Amino acid sequence: MPDTVSTTPAADAAPPAPDMLAWTCPTPLRDHPRIVMGHGGGGALSAELIEGVFAPAYGGPALAHTADAAEIRIGGARLAFSTDSFVVRPLFFPGGSIGDLAVNGTVNDLAMSGARASHLSCGFILEEGVETDVVARVAQALGEAARAAGVQVVTGDTKVVEAGHGDGVYINTSGVGLIPDGVDLRPQRVVPGDVVIVSGPIGMHGVAIMSVREGLEFGVEITSDCAPLGGLVEAMLAVTRDLHVLRDPTRGGLAASLNEIAAASGTGVVLQERAVPVPEAVGNACAVLGLDPMYVANEGKLVAFVPRDHADAVLAAMRAHPMGAGAAVIGEAVETHPGMVVARTGLGGTRVVDMPLGEQLPRIC
Amino acid sequence: MPDTVSTTPAADAAPPAPDMLAWTCPTPLRDHPRIVMGHGGGGALSAELIEGVFAPAYGGPALAHTADAAEIRIGGARLAFSTDSFVVRPLFFPGGSIGDLAVNGTVNDLAMSGARASHLSCGFILEEGVETDVVARVAQALGEAARAAGVQVVTGDTKVVEAGHGDGVYINTSGVGLIPDGVDLRPQRVVPGDVVIVSGPIGMHGVAIMSVREGLEFGVEITSDCAPLGGLVEAMLAVTRDLHVLRDPTRGGLAASLNEIAAASGTGVVLQERAVPVPEAVGNACAVLGLDPMYVANEGKLVAFVPRDHADAVLAAMRAHPMGAGAAVIGEAVETHPGMVVARTGLGGTRVVDMPLGEQLPRIC
Repeated sequence: MPDTVSTTPAADAAPPAPDMLAWTCPTPLRDHPRIVMGHGGGGALSAELIEGVFAPAYGGPALAHTADAAEIRIGGARLAFSTDSFVVRPLFFPGGSIGDLAVNGTVNDLAMSGARASHLSCGFILEEGVETDVVARVAQALGEAARAAGVQVVTGDTKVVEAGHGDGVYINTSGVGLIPDGVDLRPQRVVPGDVVIVSGPIGMHGVAIMSVREGLEFGVEITSDCAPLGGLVEAMLAVTRDLHVLRDPTRGGLAASLNEIAAASGTGVVLQERAVPVPEAVGNACAVLGLDPMYVANEGKLVAFVPRDHADAVLAAMRAHPMGAGAAVIGEAVETHPGMVVARTGLGGTRVVDMPLGEQLPRIC
Repeated sequence: MPDTVSTTPAADAAPPAPDMLAWTCPTPLRDHPRIVMGHGGGGALSAELIEGVFAPAYGGPALAHTADAAEIRIGGARLAFSTDSFVVRPLFFPGGSIGDLAVNGTVNDLAMSGARASHLSCGFILEEGVETDVVARVAQALGEAARAAGVQVVTGDTKVVEAGHGDGVYINTSGVGLIPDGVDLRPQRVVPGDVVIVSGPIGMHGVAIMSVREGLEFGVEITSDCAPLGGLVEAMLAVTRDLHVLRDPTRGGLAASLNEIAAASGTGVVLQERAVPVPEAVGNACAVLGLDPMYVANEGKLVAFVPRDHADAVLAAMRAHPMGAGAAVIGEAVETHPGMVVARTGLGGTRVVDMPLGEQLPRIC
């Protein structure tokens, strides 16, 4: 997921210590004179960095309204354009690799605009000393993922940094795709009554990475859900082009995506917690690790806000597609508590599902 | 400059040592079971990596014929699409910063297709602990360079890696731009008799980086030539759309660009060495450092192969533009020695200007 600007309020700001007063950054960032891991987590800290540093520097309205991809008009064509850098550790994990992620991450960001990705760029930053064979295996996985997603890698770049200034392989992919006529997917289109649908069980990517990174076993091997979503989105749009918004809940998980949509749309979101599909193995692993599945990254799932009249048909189309076989209605958009996400728990209570500050698991993608 | 595939012959391959035989990469890379700095240098080692690893993995003809940017057709539009990662050290140098480079590098790659860059993406990989203020200054420089080049930054991404796995700030930019009708810039269009024009004095970027990195002084401060070339290319195309090929000689310098064009076009290139504009300070610095200005990176220069009939008018248009005030004819394409670049020296001799293996100055961009 590329940077998005949310309207999450800044963290409570204590008066800056005197020795920080010389620093020139805007106010909210005075709490963080140095970059911390959470600035890359896709949560409130990431939003603060965008709002305080990048958006003012770049100027213009385009970035400020960017979701997973920017919509651009060029030569008469309406395109989605997106970029993502991948720093996942380890490079290979159950169910995929950094090469798969690099393709599917950008393909899925484009799909969230309704676009079918057609062309990808691919930039490698290699660390001196990494085995050429490792690079070749990553490139092979990347090529195979591109063929599976129906997208062409058309341009690339390779840089090498000294040992100790990288971590084997970092990859950036950027991509473009044509947005079909009549498709207009953005959180501002969400209205109370919209039905919230998730395309399948959540939390698998993050737990797969965590398990291999920490050498943990949970009885069943949990594999990443890393997969391209362009075909699923096409199947949904074949039912109606009037979907309101799509997001792929990567860094920050379902909680971050829903909070971004709630904040940008000005509606509230109510989830039925028991309806959110969490595989038993993911639930068990999260219980052991102290994680909340709502905040764990996915790489092959989407969440959709669908007009109520179309919800049954869209859900049926999703379930008929291999990437949406586990689709489920998990909640709705509401007029009350605008900008907030609230979960109805299994026991009949409610709890606020906050925007995460950083990311529970750094370097997940 | 993104990766390009040249037809440079592989280095002489000694039989692999027995302990390398288990390795699965294609033959030429057996000499390099691990990545070395030169694989990022834009020379023969970079080409080997593309030919041996990336091109076979990605498949398809598109990458194989890529120059500085890919040409793609989408929604009826003919676009240039390019990507570059920037790992320059230090982040700020005389005449610019990694932020300026990140804009101008990609803007110039698109310009070499004749396209005026319209939209950029920007992905940051930050190292934990880097001062937020440094990131803000880089972003500010990037935004200013984008405004100067007339291009919008429309989408972004930020990742953070642990201290010791980065070097403050790495940036990837990708960009798109519309290719004007009738423009077809590629080395295959070069024919014997084409006039070779360079847009101004060479070697300034590389020497500026080197001087600040090593704390050297050469009497006069040498500043990077980092600048956007879209306007200059427009001025040249206003004379004739029948330019044959353009390149911006970044990593590997003028020597690498000319060798790529010679190899891909199957023509020879003859340079008049005395006609190549080298600022006195650059020449002196290169003499002290043991560098050859022909191999030093530039970030605001281009080399053009122009049909002889249009050469005078194109040269005049270049000299009338601020980015081409120092333009000069430096040689011609010839039938003899196809694929080779030869320089006529000031003393009446000739020397072969080879493809560089790696890069004299690593992490120049």
